[in-house]
Amino acid sequence: MQRALNIARDRFADWYQAVVAGADMAESSPVRGAMVIKPWGYGVWEQIQAELDRRIKATGHENCYFPLFIPLSFIAKEADHVDGFAKEMAVVTHHRLKMIDGRLQPDPEAKLEEPLVVRPTSETIIGDAFSRWIRSHRDLPLLINQWANVVRWEMRPRLFLRTTEFLWQEGHTAHASEAEAVAETAMALEMYRSFAEDVLAMPVIAGEKPENERFPGAVATWSIEAMMQDGKALQAGTSHFLGTHFAEAQNIKFQDDAGTLTLCNTTSWGVSTRLIGGVIMTHGDDDGLRLPPAIAPRQIVVVPMLRDKPEDEHVMAYCEELVKSLSKLSAFGQPLRVLLDNKKIKSAEKRWNWVRRGAPLILEVGPRDAAGANVSMMRRDDLRDGDKVKSVIKPRQDFLENAVQLLTEIQAGLYAEAKARLDANIKTGITDWAGVENYFAGGDDDFKGWLRISWSKPTGDALEKIGAQLKALKLTIRNAPLDQPETFAKCLFTGAAGVEEILIGRAY
Amino acid sequence: MQRALNIARDRFADWYQAVVAGADMAESSPVRGAMVIKPWGYGVWEQIQAELDRRIKATGHENCYFPLFIPLSFIAKEADHVDGFAKEMAVVTHHRLKMIDGRLQPDPEAKLEEPLVVRPTSETIIGDAFSRWIRSHRDLPLLINQWANVVRWEMRPRLFLRTTEFLWQEGHTAHASEAEAVAETAMALEMYRSFAEDVLAMPVIAGEKPENERFPGAVATWSIEAMMQDGKALQAGTSHFLGTHFAEAQNIKFQDDAGTLTLCNTTSWGVSTRLIGGVIMTHGDDDGLRLPPAIAPRQIVVVPMLRDKPEDEHVMAYCEELVKSLSKLSAFGQPLRVLLDNKKIKSAEKRWNWVRRGAPLILEVGPRDAAGANVSMMRRDDLRDGDKVKSVIKPRQDFLENAVQLLTEIQAGLYAEAKARLDANIKTGITDWAGVENYFAGGDDDFKGWLRISWSKPTGDALEKIGAQLKALKLTIRNAPLDQPETFAKCLFTGAAGVEEILIGRAY
Repeated sequence: MQRALNIARDRFADWYQAVVAGADMAESSPVRGAMVIKPWGYGVWEQIQAELDRRIKATGHENCYFPLFIPLSFIAKEADHVDGFAKEMAVVTHHRLKMIDGRLQPDPEAKLEEPLVVRPTSETIIGDAFSRWIRSHRDLPLLINQWANVVRWEMRPRLFLRTTEFLWQEGHTAHASEAEAVAETAMALEMYRSFAEDVLAMPVIAGEKPENERFPGAVATWSIEAMMQDGKALQAGTSHFLGTHFAEAQNIKFQDDAGTLTLCNTTSWGVSTRLIGGVIMTHGDDDGLRLPPAIAPRQIVVVPMLRDKPEDEHVMAYCEELVKSLSKLSAFGQPLRVLLDNKKIKSAEKRWNWVRRGAPLILEVGPRDAAGANVSMMRRDDLRDGDKVKSVIKPRQDFLENAVQLLTEIQAGLYAEAKARLDANIKTGITDWAGVENYFAGGDDDFKGWLRISWSKPTGDALEKIGAQLKALKLTIRNAPLDQPETFAKCLFTGAAGVEEILIGRAY
Repeated sequence: MQRALNIARDRFADWYQAVVAGADMAESSPVRGAMVIKPWGYGVWEQIQAELDRRIKATGHENCYFPLFIPLSFIAKEADHVDGFAKEMAVVTHHRLKMIDGRLQPDPEAKLEEPLVVRPTSETIIGDAFSRWIRSHRDLPLLINQWANVVRWEMRPRLFLRTTEFLWQEGHTAHASEAEAVAETAMALEMYRSFAEDVLAMPVIAGEKPENERFPGAVATWSIEAMMQDGKALQAGTSHFLGTHFAEAQNIKFQDDAGTLTLCNTTSWGVSTRLIGGVIMTHGDDDGLRLPPAIAPRQIVVVPMLRDKPEDEHVMAYCEELVKSLSKLSAFGQPLRVLLDNKKIKSAEKRWNWVRRGAPLILEVGPRDAAGANVSMMRRDDLRDGDKVKSVIKPRQDFLENAVQLLTEIQAGLYAEAKARLDANIKTGITDWAGVENYFAGGDDDFKGWLRISWSKPTGDALEKIGAQLKALKLTIRNAPLDQPETFAKCLFTGAAGVEEILIGRAY
């Protein structure tokens, strides 16, 4: 059987790399851990950005841009202040290069008095601005978002999932009360949940992270967790309630109605290019990527079947008219994104290119289709009948009338498929540690999904111990789903009364 | 007389700072030379980005993203290869911080084997990718664009005009022939000219830079130059024909039809957040910023005049309906951007805020306006009658019917005003150096505009000498306009036969 990739999902890590390469989305760069995002990958990011940006603005947030470099003293203040502070960061120490002994190198005379850190996240530098911008309760809530690149040194990089540099948005807000800040955190979490499910067609479980998985300095961290096709979890977005911790370190205060200076409550929340990795591992199949139409840079690709013959001209004219008609339609609130692939390569090569790239609908048009006012259609979400590729001849007019409906169906179908997988692979009913060990005995590559278990929500050292116990099986607590039952089984770890259900699993 | 700013354009540098602060567009950051771009400033950038991105894509370019960090060896290769290579760059030397003797500092054990440079521009890192991506003539032309932040260490920073970090787009293309690459460079230049004039309402002169002002490594550099209200030039965009220089250094080759490996011809071109500085210095007046409607984040602002009285409710309902009706209209190919300013501050304060921010149309609506189905309208481009602010009462229906036309008129009016100033302040007829010295005798702050003179286009040392001569008067050659006469006066510098006319002036 001809497949568009030469590797299947049973070798998941290799398959992932093959999908990224086959869809021409990204590649490693000469700088260790950093990636080059190629047009098709960046096109997906542009769709994610555009739709999420609309949602961020619709909820009252304004975009700003803050400096890439953060003075070391800001980071030091945070480090003093925050347990679990991460130290792997790129540090700028010089501002000039000089040719010394025939070799270009940092100029010792241009050493910075204070080193600068390349932002790993912007709480400190944005907090510094907040402390200047906020004077009175009239300045609150302050609702800011930034689209930016950030850098976190990665020892084991992986395209989109874990790269030294990545692109993201980070929301940062300040509020007059704890209740308002908590509500903001919940708003962001729900925005991410609906974005992941409705736009990326990627079902997620929204919930609160346990204490040992919180963002350093946060009072509470919530996440959305998605299940990949190897059963591992991908943390796909986080929302942090920071209480007054950062406000204290950075002097973010407001004068309340009574004239008293009071600390603000702040939040931060973000999603990144990691989402693209999530989309790939949620929807990809053995032929490559399948893109949800809502974020496909091209939702419909028209491939003219040209043969260097006189009838080519008619085929091209027919295709051009088809693209024009389709481009007038709208789906998911935006004009359809349609491409006429007129590259000078073989049609068969084009077909496989678009299959690997996951274009939702691929139309091939040859002289017979053009003459008969038809199109030959492939649905990427339903590509094969057994081993054979399904190409269905449809009257052009029918296709035009149903194109939007088809895209909506594909979007819903991809979601339903992933949702069924998620639901089927959250195992309940395991109540003791032996059960856990037994369940995950099969090693890292075994598809096991997640466990949903009951616990007593221990903290501090008791929680550390549980974390270590889980880590030995390469497991982590993903989150405590928002949706909780009314009564709980006994704590799987301590045997004490259960107070919460949590998800545990292997993760990226 | 009440002005929205307390400083006028006769103190231009201070006025500029006051406009940026008064319009709440940007501020200096704790990192020397870097800026924080605030919502109104970033909003302008988003409009610039959106419209320019449409034009970049419409001309066949695809967006990508390349790494922020460039290995020092790449830069060294460029330095070997290129005269005039700039060395002021931020250098990353460590990838970890460590607490040593109670002080957080770069960890000596995490020193990078090869330092990384924070991109000042991306020719080298993109060229490296091109050398992998291009195999045959079928891969050409390769037309790529990137939106990114770049860093160039600045000793005398100025918000938007010259900052250590700034945002920009950089186009990078590779072609099979010199002719195609030159045509691409011209295409980019014309795209910038029309964008500056039609969208930013900022008239420019497009032309070629003299040899001594070229981008290092370029065979030819073209620019658009705009005249600010102090008579100085702002280089607002550049387009470089790089010949095969970069292709040679980076091994960017293709197999032509005959199977021969041949060097590509490459180009690069960019505009940056500097354009925002240009818009401010082109259109601002003594009341602050005036924004061309095509890039105003809000084109119409509706200010309800509330007085904590029962009729407020009716005023608000009336305003909401008005905003809703306006938002259904389109101007400049996009839906109108309309804001209902319902902040809880005094209406008079709101008025001056929007005047300073340069919103093209400001509507104030009080109970009497609401009752009479009117609006009180201010045009930012025509704000005053003598000292008095002009607020004109208009029937709501008339306003709705004419709003788009009004915005179009404002856009055209701002352009016409700036164009008249540019045309009136390019002085011709000076034919010797004494004339130049005499004309620019008045010092830096004297409004002098530019000279258009004839020269013999000397190169090498002769040109260096002229450059030094000009520099003593703080002058530079801006460019040789595309539009040239058929015959030329003698060279102002050498007395030899003239071959070209050039613009000289003071510049940012």
